[in-house]
Amino acid sequence: MFAVTILGNNSALPMHDRHPTAQVVNLQEQLFLIDCGEGTQIQMNRYKIRRNRIRHIFISHLHGDHYFGLPGLLTSYGLNGRKEDLWLYAPEPLKEILELQFRAAGIMLPYTLHFIPLKSEGILLDDKKLTISCFTVSHRIPCWGFLFKEKEKSLKLNPQKLQEYAIPASFYPRLKAGEDYSAKDGNIIKNEWVTQPAAAPLSYAYCADTAYDEAIAAKIKGVDLVYHEATYLADHEEKAFSRAHSTTRQAANIALLAQAKRLLIGHFSSKYEVLDDFLTEAKGVFENADLALEGATYLVHR
Amino acid sequence: MFAVTILGNNSALPMHDRHPTAQVVNLQEQLFLIDCGEGTQIQMNRYKIRRNRIRHIFISHLHGDHYFGLPGLLTSYGLNGRKEDLWLYAPEPLKEILELQFRAAGIMLPYTLHFIPLKSEGILLDDKKLTISCFTVSHRIPCWGFLFKEKEKSLKLNPQKLQEYAIPASFYPRLKAGEDYSAKDGNIIKNEWVTQPAAAPLSYAYCADTAYDEAIAAKIKGVDLVYHEATYLADHEEKAFSRAHSTTRQAANIALLAQAKRLLIGHFSSKYEVLDDFLTEAKGVFENADLALEGATYLVHR
Repeated sequence: MFAVTILGNNSALPMHDRHPTAQVVNLQEQLFLIDCGEGTQIQMNRYKIRRNRIRHIFISHLHGDHYFGLPGLLTSYGLNGRKEDLWLYAPEPLKEILELQFRAAGIMLPYTLHFIPLKSEGILLDDKKLTISCFTVSHRIPCWGFLFKEKEKSLKLNPQKLQEYAIPASFYPRLKAGEDYSAKDGNIIKNEWVTQPAAAPLSYAYCADTAYDEAIAAKIKGVDLVYHEATYLADHEEKAFSRAHSTTRQAANIALLAQAKRLLIGHFSSKYEVLDDFLTEAKGVFENADLALEGATYLVHR
Repeated sequence: MFAVTILGNNSALPMHDRHPTAQVVNLQEQLFLIDCGEGTQIQMNRYKIRRNRIRHIFISHLHGDHYFGLPGLLTSYGLNGRKEDLWLYAPEPLKEILELQFRAAGIMLPYTLHFIPLKSEGILLDDKKLTISCFTVSHRIPCWGFLFKEKEKSLKLNPQKLQEYAIPASFYPRLKAGEDYSAKDGNIIKNEWVTQPAAAPLSYAYCADTAYDEAIAAKIKGVDLVYHEATYLADHEEKAFSRAHSTTRQAANIALLAQAKRLLIGHFSSKYEVLDDFLTEAKGVFENADLALEGATYLVHR
């Protein structure tokens, strides 16, 4: 499974029972937290997020609606006796803020918190299943997007065919890597007879808070699912511009330019109690669009 | 009206749909916020607190469950265009924490925030209706309780009697202050003929997070309503001691020693999902006790 669960979809402050930004990416039961607005740990309780599976937290920028829930979450991990290391990727000033808070509270976290300051575009995490990289977006203060890319997957074996050709299990890894098998009788068992093509690696891009910026499209080209903020409806383009936010149509246009497969919009302004028009406007530009709704999980698939 | 509304009654972290500490004191529609755990602004939405009536905020200590909701609340005031000054009474390190957060966000609050560091016991606010003072309690880090005391009230006039004795309105303030009235015919109209005794001034004490400390009782002597933390049931007295918290019976004992009229207990440990035993144990020592329940308002009266 590769999926995103929305914990908060409102901009600036909690309103209309919507919460500030937070989302959880699940890649085969490894969880990643992106942004952590106030109340994120409460939302985690509500939506039964297995928070101990989170080892990496990404903070896009230091407007409070994207991180005011973080000190509480980190403290709660400590109170609950977390021992596993935690990696925090965030703009540099957050380090001092957290240190001051822990010092004032007389707290020593019982786990190691690795702070990785976001300084330049590139890969943040590279493990056997995926790479996660950051890219700059256009906001009023330094702000980052995050791109989650699955690694190329190995070929799938066909169990029936393996048996038919009596291929020993010890050779399976080489089959998965694409090799043919030379049988004892000298026959060559071609790889494609016993394997199926690997599923294409999938990708998810989180485009944080940003003004309309076509450069983003190039950075997330061909992504399977893109989350792009859409703080305002299209008739508020000037307001969006002045505050370095985006409208529905601008978000959809980035998805179009990026040739993304699917779009998720969120970070809705509190001025809107009802969100129907957000979806209509986005779909007008990019059909495969959805609202990022709290508690909902969106699959990354093709 | 003099009353306290509970917004959060859980200790350490949000759990069982309970929230970290926050309460609002209402004295004749002037609101005061005591502590501001994560999610306080969300609880204010839920319980329809008229947050713009708050001009003074009191933070007992810098454990996160008592102030992690404050940066969000202060920011939201700004986003909503607050212009009125706000007074914040809190341990000194909070000033630097907030300044760093505002700087990192590139925020200039559109209102003036007066920061008053808590340094010694004494009066923090003295206006025509009340005095608010702070006193030390016993916790792992510097921690303060707050005492709200109504001022002596003036005598109540009896409108019927005023008319009967034809006392001019210009003399009413002097009647309220206790003077007799000399009528034009030389007769003395005794004050007690035309007035009723003033209602007794009421008081509320917030005893924050604290270990059992009998010195507190002397500081809040005769208070009408006391909120005292009761993190644990009585059988966890040793645990309470080691963490500088109190049990139900200890909280009730302070109310007894203080000769308080009524007790409110809160700051319940997350280990307890059901709270019935808290009330039973407290009432066993001090009958007029209540659980501090979220969303409930408790009158300060005699």
